[in-house]
Amino acid sequence: MAVKILVAEHAGFCFGVKRAINLAEKSSKGSNKVYTLGPLIHNPQEVERLSSLGVSTISSEEDLKEGDTVIIRSHGVPPWKERELKQKGIKVVDATCPYVKAVHDAVVRLVKEGYFVVLVGEKNHPEVVGTLGYVQEYGGDCTVIESREDIKKILGKERVGIVAQTTQNEQFFKEVVGEIALWAKEVLVINTICNATSERQEDVYKLAPNVDVMIVVGGKNSGNTRRLYEISYQLNPRSYHIETADELRDEWFNDVKVVGITAGASTPDWIIKDVYNRIEKVCGQRS
Amino acid sequence: MAVKILVAEHAGFCFGVKRAINLAEKSSKGSNKVYTLGPLIHNPQEVERLSSLGVSTISSEEDLKEGDTVIIRSHGVPPWKERELKQKGIKVVDATCPYVKAVHDAVVRLVKEGYFVVLVGEKNHPEVVGTLGYVQEYGGDCTVIESREDIKKILGKERVGIVAQTTQNEQFFKEVVGEIALWAKEVLVINTICNATSERQEDVYKLAPNVDVMIVVGGKNSGNTRRLYEISYQLNPRSYHIETADELRDEWFNDVKVVGITAGASTPDWIIKDVYNRIEKVCGQRS
Repeated sequence: MAVKILVAEHAGFCFGVKRAINLAEKSSKGSNKVYTLGPLIHNPQEVERLSSLGVSTISSEEDLKEGDTVIIRSHGVPPWKERELKQKGIKVVDATCPYVKAVHDAVVRLVKEGYFVVLVGEKNHPEVVGTLGYVQEYGGDCTVIESREDIKKILGKERVGIVAQTTQNEQFFKEVVGEIALWAKEVLVINTICNATSERQEDVYKLAPNVDVMIVVGGKNSGNTRRLYEISYQLNPRSYHIETADELRDEWFNDVKVVGITAGASTPDWIIKDVYNRIEKVCGQRS
Repeated sequence: MAVKILVAEHAGFCFGVKRAINLAEKSSKGSNKVYTLGPLIHNPQEVERLSSLGVSTISSEEDLKEGDTVIIRSHGVPPWKERELKQKGIKVVDATCPYVKAVHDAVVRLVKEGYFVVLVGEKNHPEVVGTLGYVQEYGGDCTVIESREDIKKILGKERVGIVAQTTQNEQFFKEVVGEIALWAKEVLVINTICNATSERQEDVYKLAPNVDVMIVVGGKNSGNTRRLYEISYQLNPRSYHIETADELRDEWFNDVKVVGITAGASTPDWIIKDVYNRIEKVCGQRS
């Protein structure tokens, strides 16, 4: 019997990532050299493809000189970073995702209204670093909540404003909000988890329990892909997180009738197709 | 071996109930007759005691005439009810719990700031009826959430303000807040569950799993007592909700080494002591 391969309805590139890649491709056509501070997206294979088009990843703005073009990634940067670049005479192409911009606006509002800011996210994620920059710029006080343990930091805070990294796990965000609402006198929640994140996570809740094996495709450095994998693994222990088709192993598909595929918001279509084809081939040989 | 009887650290009368009873007792000394619209507190035995002091329960303000004294219960009333009474020349003693007053203030603030109001509570509880009166008075829009099913009513609301009946179950409040925070764009939570409620519920979480039998004492019409019982029953199926010592049954205490007692915020000390003594006696005869 042929194996059925189901691809999640929402998988792969989100609006913000598509926009950033379009801006990068466009910029690379115009000038000699285009740089991104850190990889443009958390997908090594796609970053390599962009590199072949002349979009180079650098790790520090020290490497930039006047007249160079730098792309601000979809994750955004702290406000002073953007100022510094412009002051150096560097041409800035802002590919910050509009949904990330909405998080910046949200924290600025919370700070202005006197709330202690809680950002539910990964402490070292570039998006979180960028957002924290806006809290600091406006003189606010903030803490990042990455695990249940971190919630303790809120004890004694009376007015708490909560936002999330755009790609947060919805269930974790929900728990954090509920817990803080019991501890604080007043809590203003601005749900900044983006639609693309909700849709991809909801698809995993629907798909993972109904397949024999679940393949989650995306950069190992991609937070949103890791969270899709975590959700999937909870629902179905036969879940695997891979970056490319080369990581697929034949034995995963023994006795398998239905395979599910999903992919993080930074995973390009060509990698998803590759994975699909390889699974089809492996299972075809088997039958 | 003697049976150990543990009474929860926080059990029985809360500040607001004590205050209401003091006001009722004081008022009954001054004038000929004192009335309450509905039972002063949700404890039939204590209401009977007050009745013997001249504090009568009536069901409608139609029964009142000019010059009578009426006590507004700790649960509060809609604002127009208070106006009506005063306009009729009735002397009003306001025993509304200050924590309930804080809920009124909270909903008025939410309405003024343009939020759709969510009140987590029991639809027909007098406190909820009173609070809804304040939402209406200020032209706001509101829904009461009593069960998970009710959360659906929030779909499509963008800015939601959430408060709770002062005696709500904290875990349920937490779930409702978390769920709505995922659905709405912006949620302002003002946690109006009173300290007395939190303390009594937390004590049950500590006590119920560590005793053989748990006795929850309080009016069958007392919402906060019922919620203590529900929490207790989840943690320990040998939980019983009684109003008075007469309801205790000897067979509950067979093979029992440790008994826990708690009581709702409207349960007088004399009933708790009665229950304690009766359990001591039953278990003493047994050994």
